[in-house]
Amino acid sequence: MGVARREAILEAATGYFAKGGYHRTAMSRIAADVGLTEGGLLHHFPSKKHLLLAVVERRILTTARWLDETPADATGRDVLRRLAGVTERELAEPGLIELFVIVSAEAADTSSPAHALFAERYDTAINGLAGLLRRAVESGEFRADVDCTAVARECIAVSDGLQLQWVLSGGELDLVAAARTHLDRLARTITADGAGL
Amino acid sequence: MGVARREAILEAATGYFAKGGYHRTAMSRIAADVGLTEGGLLHHFPSKKHLLLAVVERRILTTARWLDETPADATGRDVLRRLAGVTERELAEPGLIELFVIVSAEAADTSSPAHALFAERYDTAINGLAGLLRRAVESGEFRADVDCTAVARECIAVSDGLQLQWVLSGGELDLVAAARTHLDRLARTITADGAGL
Repeated sequence: MGVARREAILEAATGYFAKGGYHRTAMSRIAADVGLTEGGLLHHFPSKKHLLLAVVERRILTTARWLDETPADATGRDVLRRLAGVTERELAEPGLIELFVIVSAEAADTSSPAHALFAERYDTAINGLAGLLRRAVESGEFRADVDCTAVARECIAVSDGLQLQWVLSGGELDLVAAARTHLDRLARTITADGAGL
Repeated sequence: MGVARREAILEAATGYFAKGGYHRTAMSRIAADVGLTEGGLLHHFPSKKHLLLAVVERRILTTARWLDETPADATGRDVLRRLAGVTERELAEPGLIELFVIVSAEAADTSSPAHALFAERYDTAINGLAGLLRRAVESGEFRADVDCTAVARECIAVSDGLQLQWVLSGGELDLVAAARTHLDRLARTITADGAGL
């Protein structure tokens, strides 16, 4: 399929999913938006599930960029602050948080394409984040006995778990404050000076 | 429907889901197990999704019992240790962890019955756990400035997030060790004496 057409579909789907939510968006609405019939859209994406997976994959790539964009001279605390920033950015598109929770479930089925995508995404995120934290251990900012992989897993678990709670709270939970509270606690137990964020 | 018949169906479904996984279990297999035709089973539970929700609801009630069963003289650290125990017990039925992740996704749809069930489950769990932690603040074991609701949310988020990572790792992740690492860190930041678990 044409890259431009595919991008246009994903752009429209992301917008509708983010605004109205996945379950409340009809395929016909997305099709109309990009000048296709519903049959035409189904030719590109055989089901709404396929479209969902592509939207989430695109979002994962965007979010993953924060790792690559971390400056070489960032301190360990800078890395933790950037994690809080990711949460803040995710809240700017609340509908996509719902999508993430939905696709997590698909990923629990080892035979689904979402499983391979998520397993890879998590390996990359955990290893990348652990690598950034390890620099702070090497510089002496973090304690020498910190298990960076365990800390990375914990940060990602808190972020995922709080997103589910945020969805369940109907958006009432202060997600950024909750994430910051955890990161501050984390800083106090892994930094050599024992100070918070 | 008869309570005994319903229990027999849920028992069989729980066993198959836990052993073989939700996606790999056929409704016909469950039906045969309780002496029903597939049509007979569908009369009780109109779809596999309905059956899934009932199985998860039953499990939530079982897990919630640990809260009620916490002895009145349990210390704050005892409560945190009991949380690690819940994770250990969940690992005894690994297939049900996958179920939990699947139903979480259903819960993201505010119009689904899973949403109401999960929203209520989380409110109860967060408030119940926060109440137990508050006793430790009152006794002076935990610091006076601890936000017990925030700590409860964090514990549940870590548990949920790590369960997803456990599923994605194909069961390789040491879930109990990861949960304990977090709870130990938590203890060091919320106890008055600053010691771990």
